[in-house]
Amino acid sequence: MYYIGVDIGGMSIKAGIVDENGNVLKKQTIISEAEKDGLLIVNDIANLIRDIAASFSISLADVDGIGLGFPGSVYDEKGEVVYCCNINLVKIPLVKILTKELGVKNIKISNDANCAVLGETLFGAGKGAKNSVLITLGTGLGTGIIVNGKLLTGNHSAGAEGGHMQINIGGPTCGCGAKGHYEAYASATALIAQTKAAMEKHPESLMNEIAQKDGLDGKTAFTAAKQGDKVANAVVKRYIKYIGMGLVNFGNLFYPEIIMVGGGISKEGDYLVKPLQRYVSRNVYGSMYNPKIKVVAATLGNDAGIIGAASLAMKY
Amino acid sequence: MYYIGVDIGGMSIKAGIVDENGNVLKKQTIISEAEKDGLLIVNDIANLIRDIAASFSISLADVDGIGLGFPGSVYDEKGEVVYCCNINLVKIPLVKILTKELGVKNIKISNDANCAVLGETLFGAGKGAKNSVLITLGTGLGTGIIVNGKLLTGNHSAGAEGGHMQINIGGPTCGCGAKGHYEAYASATALIAQTKAAMEKHPESLMNEIAQKDGLDGKTAFTAAKQGDKVANAVVKRYIKYIGMGLVNFGNLFYPEIIMVGGGISKEGDYLVKPLQRYVSRNVYGSMYNPKIKVVAATLGNDAGIIGAASLAMKY
Repeated sequence: MYYIGVDIGGMSIKAGIVDENGNVLKKQTIISEAEKDGLLIVNDIANLIRDIAASFSISLADVDGIGLGFPGSVYDEKGEVVYCCNINLVKIPLVKILTKELGVKNIKISNDANCAVLGETLFGAGKGAKNSVLITLGTGLGTGIIVNGKLLTGNHSAGAEGGHMQINIGGPTCGCGAKGHYEAYASATALIAQTKAAMEKHPESLMNEIAQKDGLDGKTAFTAAKQGDKVANAVVKRYIKYIGMGLVNFGNLFYPEIIMVGGGISKEGDYLVKPLQRYVSRNVYGSMYNPKIKVVAATLGNDAGIIGAASLAMKY
Repeated sequence: MYYIGVDIGGMSIKAGIVDENGNVLKKQTIISEAEKDGLLIVNDIANLIRDIAASFSISLADVDGIGLGFPGSVYDEKGEVVYCCNINLVKIPLVKILTKELGVKNIKISNDANCAVLGETLFGAGKGAKNSVLITLGTGLGTGIIVNGKLLTGNHSAGAEGGHMQINIGGPTCGCGAKGHYEAYASATALIAQTKAAMEKHPESLMNEIAQKDGLDGKTAFTAAKQGDKVANAVVKRYIKYIGMGLVNFGNLFYPEIIMVGGGISKEGDYLVKPLQRYVSRNVYGSMYNPKIKVVAATLGNDAGIIGAASLAMKY
């Protein structure tokens, strides 16, 4: 069976032909015109889907379903884009438009973090789990949640916004304007701010040297910590604890079999994930009476978006 | 159709005959011997079920199902009591024992907060909702969650422990020993501690007079605030904000159609619920693009436990 997964971004749109086992058989990427005019993206997506099918020598009639991952708010059941910070689309019935345009009946859409958790749970790090949570540590902090084998979306698909969970009273300001949100402590952006503050306070820290050479980013503190820099080590330890706090909340609420960590920061692998595992096992309520919640890095990497989107259209 | 709902407590066990519309047709209560010996409760429950059926003139063969609400940790799918602070039962296959004892096949068990949200969502304040959250403000803070029309229980039914969600870094210590948990800010116990601290700091506050007359409890600050006492008003306002913080987190994660507030404090009605509604509407992410999350008081009152337990055994 052939599915097409489309990973929509502010800068580019990626599409892939995906089989029912989550294998990506072909990929294609285009630059998105979305920043100029949101509606242009609709044609971009339709053309990309036609192109990738043609270059794989199948007709759209051979496609069993198309899934779209969108980097913003989506009303899944209605197939409607609600709004997005980076792409100027408000209340657009994207699924209806594409169904008409392409003649494919099974088209689904969801938020990109929802797609990612679905892809990782069906075909990646969380394979076999009935309950799972994925967080993506990037510019923001995205969360996707599977409960009883199904995506948790909430009324009007407005849920699963775990980045905006309050973990502190007061504290740094989130992208949404509120204070104390998980995203403001545990996103890559938050880590960079924490790194910068520590660098300014400790000009002697190796982080300053590394940042001057490679630029300041989410790797700076990790790189310096691995080389024995104490200030960097404290930054990393505290940052991991912040991530852990949110994961413990997910553990207490969802008690999933597995929590997966994705996004740029997750490339730190065991260095990040092992202490997170300890923190979660130690702090989730009832851990001593129940099976351990596994904490692992996501495994689908760059293809997560495509595979996740495609899996929206599968019977799962 | 006849169901029997059993509401198990540390001090008493209540049972009720409940029809398929959630009406309680008959009720009976016994004092629990559980504090002496946990296993005695098994016979108590079996006898209570036999008694109430007999006194309603039906045989157990006429009973379509029995549901048990347990005030502790339960492994629902296995029908097993895992542990409990107040009743000395560890890893007891309660459903299996009762099935053998009573000859009724459809026996289900869950945590009492799970029962409450199920009862309220099927037959009470949340009727018709596909996604709902109930918090009970009592000695502790219980949470029950419905996602896509089903109870959220998590792996080994260890989830839905929203009282142990961290809403602050540091802060007061929770019953479980950790700091900054929702329960330590928003339970009735927490309100009493907040009231007491304000009374000590402000001997002139009306709360002192009220507490001396009626005893200090979860009503003290509300009663004084309603009579114009400024210190009490500040206690109540802050307490409501604490409750709201957790509700906003539930809103962001589950985006339910409705959040219900139960337990002793919920008797404050609109005085409590209206400001909570404002706080939730103002602070849940994406509120302006999506239907309002309703915040209401639970309505089943003392029968919630029985109706909720009975509904476990219904096809819903």
